[in-house]
Amino acid sequence: MTTVRVVGTGLLGTSIGMALSAKGFRVQLHDTSPTSVALARDLGAGEVGDDPADVVVVATPPDVAASVVAQQLRDQPDAVVTDVASVKQTVLEELREAVGGDALARYVGSHPMAGRERSGAVAARADLFEGRTWVLCPHETTADRARASIDEIARAAGASVVTMPAAEHDLAVAAVSHLPQVAASLVAARLRDLPDDAVGLAGPGVRDVTRIAASDPLLWTQILAGNAANLLPVLDAVADDLDRVRSAVRAICEGENAATGARGVLAQTIADGQTGHARLPGKHGAPPTAYASVIVVLPDRPRQLAQLFADVGDAGINLEDLRIEHAVGAQVGLAELMVLPAALEPLQEALTAAGWRLHS
Amino acid sequence: MTTVRVVGTGLLGTSIGMALSAKGFRVQLHDTSPTSVALARDLGAGEVGDDPADVVVVATPPDVAASVVAQQLRDQPDAVVTDVASVKQTVLEELREAVGGDALARYVGSHPMAGRERSGAVAARADLFEGRTWVLCPHETTADRARASIDEIARAAGASVVTMPAAEHDLAVAAVSHLPQVAASLVAARLRDLPDDAVGLAGPGVRDVTRIAASDPLLWTQILAGNAANLLPVLDAVADDLDRVRSAVRAICEGENAATGARGVLAQTIADGQTGHARLPGKHGAPPTAYASVIVVLPDRPRQLAQLFADVGDAGINLEDLRIEHAVGAQVGLAELMVLPAALEPLQEALTAAGWRLHS
Repeated sequence: MTTVRVVGTGLLGTSIGMALSAKGFRVQLHDTSPTSVALARDLGAGEVGDDPADVVVVATPPDVAASVVAQQLRDQPDAVVTDVASVKQTVLEELREAVGGDALARYVGSHPMAGRERSGAVAARADLFEGRTWVLCPHETTADRARASIDEIARAAGASVVTMPAAEHDLAVAAVSHLPQVAASLVAARLRDLPDDAVGLAGPGVRDVTRIAASDPLLWTQILAGNAANLLPVLDAVADDLDRVRSAVRAICEGENAATGARGVLAQTIADGQTGHARLPGKHGAPPTAYASVIVVLPDRPRQLAQLFADVGDAGINLEDLRIEHAVGAQVGLAELMVLPAALEPLQEALTAAGWRLHS
Repeated sequence: MTTVRVVGTGLLGTSIGMALSAKGFRVQLHDTSPTSVALARDLGAGEVGDDPADVVVVATPPDVAASVVAQQLRDQPDAVVTDVASVKQTVLEELREAVGGDALARYVGSHPMAGRERSGAVAARADLFEGRTWVLCPHETTADRARASIDEIARAAGASVVTMPAAEHDLAVAAVSHLPQVAASLVAARLRDLPDDAVGLAGPGVRDVTRIAASDPLLWTQILAGNAANLLPVLDAVADDLDRVRSAVRAICEGENAATGARGVLAQTIADGQTGHARLPGKHGAPPTAYASVIVVLPDRPRQLAQLFADVGDAGINLEDLRIEHAVGAQVGLAELMVLPAALEPLQEALTAAGWRLHS
């Protein structure tokens, strides 16, 4: 049985402990706070103990990750050690200064892309990593067995593993994680001074944009500071785009003569956002393919969905994605079925033959 | 029976028609596109007809709302007329120029705070307004019966009504609707040039922030341009905040000496966002009903969805809504099934008995 030492029983550490304990790993929990360890243990994340570890998972705040990894490499001379901090280059660079080559070979940085705005062990879940991506960032001297060990841990937790160099990881998360955090916080900050009536008009749009604004300031300061070099150019690019939008809006305020081209700037801004949004992965991380879609009218009778999928299956057609617009209390719902373009006509024919009403 | 004439059968018009038809109103549908009218009728939004209306709901794009309202006030000399455009002042000002006092008294601008990034009748739902806010913006000469009529329509659609002057409305939506749209689009635009591997790291955070980036450029250009005067100061304030963040990040890049206070700026930015986010109204302001949800692990084998819905149907349980989450490169997906709270335990028991793996 593999012994996994989890150092740091916050959201990630506790969730990792819960996931691995459920899979038969022997997990031993550590944290500077005894209360935190006790809570994690009570949540089923593992036990209190100090046996030699096969694998060490350092799940501390990012600022101290490198020094804790270094200490664990020293204290556990046979163990493979990983950290799960959101930024990888700074941790790696600190470690290069702090430990020798043999120890460094037993280290592989990683980052499970999971967890949202809630923090702490109380928010921990055994299925936090289910279906999520866990990034592995081996450096040039990482031992094969180190990579293999953490790969195994990540998969045991239910994640799918992606490998990339630390530098590439940090560049990626600057745009897909850190910028969105900054944006959410800046938008949410504008809500502070609004009258109650105004805030009362908030709909799902602003809620979606500001959901992660509930994040922890101290944790995120460490993350943003730790990735400053990659974050700065992204923020500068957004500032440039924002300036263009402001100029256009200002021109429209000044009246039609000044506003030539201003509406075009606004339209291009939204269109560019559409293009970028369309790059987000579809099913199982496949590159976003242009799917064809069929919209099926779903009478609000029992088992309609089951019948629909049975008919799709009988036609031998694979669904790439699906959306249901379910109208509570209405006569119909709409199911949007997405398939590869080649499957569109066969699907339409099969569903029509089975008596379904379709809309293009 | 009250006859409601809906002019413009896009997302809002069709949804209004569906909601009011279900409540026993007689709805007659109009649109410049006969195909659009036919689709809306097929979806249960009303009938084709041209009888004198008691109430006219103008649900056209914002740019033409005022002229269509003016025409309807002329063509329907006894009707109360409202428009549902996202900006109210410009529509009102145009109307003041276009119609006389008696007609103007029969007009009251309004705005249902509903709908998301999808547009068109295909996305229409009868319950789109359920639990949402519908803002009424009577001007100083609006007749009492006009206000009362639209109040009744809004409540019939399931919305709660809030009354405020047009100017106050436009100020509010600049911060709670228009800024979030701009922010989502700017963040999403950064995804355009990323390598596929980088985009593959996208998690729920960036998806939430960029969800409304899928919005329609032409519609949103009209909305943003129509509210330019209120939007500009909000964008300027965000640009100032962003500049502060950039300076802090730049200082951190330059090294510790330059970075005094920089981390404090970052922490304050996230904290201000937390404060603003906390102002958003609670559960009753969010999804229409508090649904309970069950997350089901979907192995990527054929017919799993069909089997799942068959099992749900066999248990006699009605699904209120459903979301499918796609894992990057994983062999599983996750289906989130939403049901009324009373159905939660029966659903969990039924699915467990049928062999499904569930997550809380």
